[in-house]
Amino acid sequence: EKPKEGRLAGLTTLKTLNKKQRFAVPWPICMTPESLKEWVAIESDSIQPLPHFRQEIFKMMDIAADKLRHLGAAVDSIDMGHQELPDGQNLPIPPILLAELGNDPKKPTVCFYGHLDVQPAKKEDGWHTDPFTLVEVDGKLYGRGATDNKGPVLAWINAVGAFQALNQDIPVNIKFIIEGMEEAGSVSLDELVKREKDRFFSNVDYIVISDNLWISKKKPALIYGTRGNIYFTVEVKCRDQDFHSGTFGGILNEPMADLVSLLGSLVDSSGHILIPGIYDNVAPLSEEEKKMYETIDLNLEEYQNNSQVERFLFDTKEEILMHLWRYPSLSIHGIEGAFHEPGAKTVIPAQVIGKFSIRLVPYMNISVVETQVKKYLEDIFSQRNSSNKLKVNMTLGVHPWIANIHDIQYIAARRAIKTVFGVDPDMIRDGSTIPIAKTFQDIIQKSVMMLPLGAVDDGEHSQNEKINRYNYIEGSKLFAAFFLEVAKMHS
Amino acid sequence: EKPKEGRLAGLTTLKTLNKKQRFAVPWPICMTPESLKEWVAIESDSIQPLPHFRQEIFKMMDIAADKLRHLGAAVDSIDMGHQELPDGQNLPIPPILLAELGNDPKKPTVCFYGHLDVQPAKKEDGWHTDPFTLVEVDGKLYGRGATDNKGPVLAWINAVGAFQALNQDIPVNIKFIIEGMEEAGSVSLDELVKREKDRFFSNVDYIVISDNLWISKKKPALIYGTRGNIYFTVEVKCRDQDFHSGTFGGILNEPMADLVSLLGSLVDSSGHILIPGIYDNVAPLSEEEKKMYETIDLNLEEYQNNSQVERFLFDTKEEILMHLWRYPSLSIHGIEGAFHEPGAKTVIPAQVIGKFSIRLVPYMNISVVETQVKKYLEDIFSQRNSSNKLKVNMTLGVHPWIANIHDIQYIAARRAIKTVFGVDPDMIRDGSTIPIAKTFQDIIQKSVMMLPLGAVDDGEHSQNEKINRYNYIEGSKLFAAFFLEVAKMHS
Repeated sequence: EKPKEGRLAGLTTLKTLNKKQRFAVPWPICMTPESLKEWVAIESDSIQPLPHFRQEIFKMMDIAADKLRHLGAAVDSIDMGHQELPDGQNLPIPPILLAELGNDPKKPTVCFYGHLDVQPAKKEDGWHTDPFTLVEVDGKLYGRGATDNKGPVLAWINAVGAFQALNQDIPVNIKFIIEGMEEAGSVSLDELVKREKDRFFSNVDYIVISDNLWISKKKPALIYGTRGNIYFTVEVKCRDQDFHSGTFGGILNEPMADLVSLLGSLVDSSGHILIPGIYDNVAPLSEEEKKMYETIDLNLEEYQNNSQVERFLFDTKEEILMHLWRYPSLSIHGIEGAFHEPGAKTVIPAQVIGKFSIRLVPYMNISVVETQVKKYLEDIFSQRNSSNKLKVNMTLGVHPWIANIHDIQYIAARRAIKTVFGVDPDMIRDGSTIPIAKTFQDIIQKSVMMLPLGAVDDGEHSQNEKINRYNYIEGSKLFAAFFLEVAKMHS
Repeated sequence: EKPKEGRLAGLTTLKTLNKKQRFAVPWPICMTPESLKEWVAIESDSIQPLPHFRQEIFKMMDIAADKLRHLGAAVDSIDMGHQELPDGQNLPIPPILLAELGNDPKKPTVCFYGHLDVQPAKKEDGWHTDPFTLVEVDGKLYGRGATDNKGPVLAWINAVGAFQALNQDIPVNIKFIIEGMEEAGSVSLDELVKREKDRFFSNVDYIVISDNLWISKKKPALIYGTRGNIYFTVEVKCRDQDFHSGTFGGILNEPMADLVSLLGSLVDSSGHILIPGIYDNVAPLSEEEKKMYETIDLNLEEYQNNSQVERFLFDTKEEILMHLWRYPSLSIHGIEGAFHEPGAKTVIPAQVIGKFSIRLVPYMNISVVETQVKKYLEDIFSQRNSSNKLKVNMTLGVHPWIANIHDIQYIAARRAIKTVFGVDPDMIRDGSTIPIAKTFQDIIQKSVMMLPLGAVDDGEHSQNEKINRYNYIEGSKLFAAFFLEVAKMHS
């Protein structure tokens, strides 16, 4: 059965909500995806470093600024200067929007972070429809950026607009920080957040990010953690120039033999990391946490089929999710400097760089792990008595992020979800490293929450990205319900 | 002191030779490098697959055919058809020259193999002089192909010409097989040798190759063996598409972890190969062989300095040479399918192919080693209980070659060296895999000898390739002396 369109869909759900009498926002407006259609049409690709795409992002930020002004917000479009690319090209960085609506000291201030740039998309990559034309098929709104992250930004605007359209008081002060370079690594965002810490962010109580997905197709989720990442290079060097294995094979400590031995000592075949002490600071598993994992809606068979993996290291939903979210993992990515092409080459690479990284979890400490890794590899290497030179470097260290799920805004969000969707959310984490939450937490030192709207099958970053009409509309309601709940609890 | 030029240099040495009364070839002619200059000027590059270079090789083969005809030889320039390259290009293969001079059933027939194609060379690669202009500096004749292999081919022709110029009977029947595709893998040579086995090669007694170098700058050498090579790919596959380590790190048997563990189990840090049984068929070290290693002229300190290696696996000249020549070695070349570029990428490669090869020595057997390697890797992999798929393939197998140093032509060459250079040669091998000797040995089933003329510092394949004037001239004499010795011993 096709869901009902526009106003009607909103009104139908409104009745249900009113019956429950949990809060009093009706949904007569803002519920058609017209604005989303207009926004998806802009190819605001931040990955391809071409002037044309940058112009599109600028256009996107302008339209969003207008939309926010139309909402009555005071909008600052902050010029972030230029970016020099590795190829020497100089491109302008799209502005970051800082917007605020309401300044009532009796109300809590909720700041929403979102981004309006998108991943590249081309019809010929396997899209069934034009990626920059929002098309609805069976209740799914297909288009690049529909779920990542234009849809959620508009849902937040919808929520604010609904209160206004009905002349109802918005129960919270609203702030927005909207960028246009997230997919390209949030160029210059940190800088701005630091700069605005004591001005724009000074009265912010809660920060909400809606840039992830549920773990289910149907059941909403709240995200309270992301893994960090610490990236290492392991260089083993004999000399600059490669050798020929006919001429030198047999009398050398070959760097590749040293390196595979080092890399092979990092993790065992059950995925257990062999670096002494590495698990020491991993948070112990509490009973409350254990129970949260049990209630999560994950169809293991479907998950396995979708991933095309014959067998995982673990058999149960709980073990799998814990090893993706709350335990560290180590992955070997590759080797630089060795023979990597098809075919056969009898080279003895003279200088090779292995690369691996460890996904960090609370409460692992970057510098402690760095020391443990270096000491371990140096010990193993010295046991080999090789004449080569070893250099281990940490090239990247991003902290894990974890929120306190008993914070007011988490409780408020759980209540709002129960109101709008009728269920308790999955309390989940994201195994990836998303520095933004930790950045806000560290700089602004306020509670950060990830409140996703999209379903697990939305395909962010892939072909045929979509957001369900249901998720878009109920998500808009969810944000409004959240305003009411958080205001109630905050006072 | 600069060596004397041309005729005079020849005549001076002649006197010495005559005094010893070991044989009676005077050296009035052929001793200037005029022909070498003409040949080096032709850019007969077989590596770069361009029509222009192929034309140069054709030109080179034509000039050589004329030179051989001028010597009185009957020359067949055999059309070897076309070659289809991986990029679809179709290029003509240069002809192979089969030449013969003399057909006296009372004389032995000595066949010389050589090639007239060269490695690429460009002035800007670091040549001090134009690579295709033969230039003499301090007794060194610089130019691409001077030592590899145009110089030695001309030295053989010089030796024949010397007998003729003096109206002396050539004591052996002479044959030549000269190709133009050696650097590119001797395209179609095998085919011709097989085809001519019962015709051109039917009366050949000895095959001489002069396409290597001495191990010393001063002391001549005879080469009686080359290592073989067996190349393996080890594929570990989870699925087609790579994973993101944030999304899947922690729950997978990661192919790279499996692969580095497999590759790390092949060889220990002292260079010892860990595959059970692999040393079983390696020839035991005889007392005679041991003594030969002791007399070899290798300045270990200089060798080590030149190689820019801080420390070898072995401390003595004998151990180092034995591990380059008469013991197998295993080298890991690289990994295909993993992250190999500079920078940091958090990929979990889903399908990776490790590559390694083993240099084979007498009397290791390719199919025995293949079975040992596959069984060993499959055992190790099955102990890991990984859900990935393993595929081990042998992609190349070339036999080692060893000659009987008590064969007539080896004894003859040792005597000729003693006559011309006044010393016993280093009896050496080549650690590289040069299939040609084994090919001739297997197909024609006659004694094959490598009789190098060039010094260790000739820089074949590198910038500033050269042959010493001394080596070129004395080498020409050496060949003539060899004709006399082999004829004497053969009868």
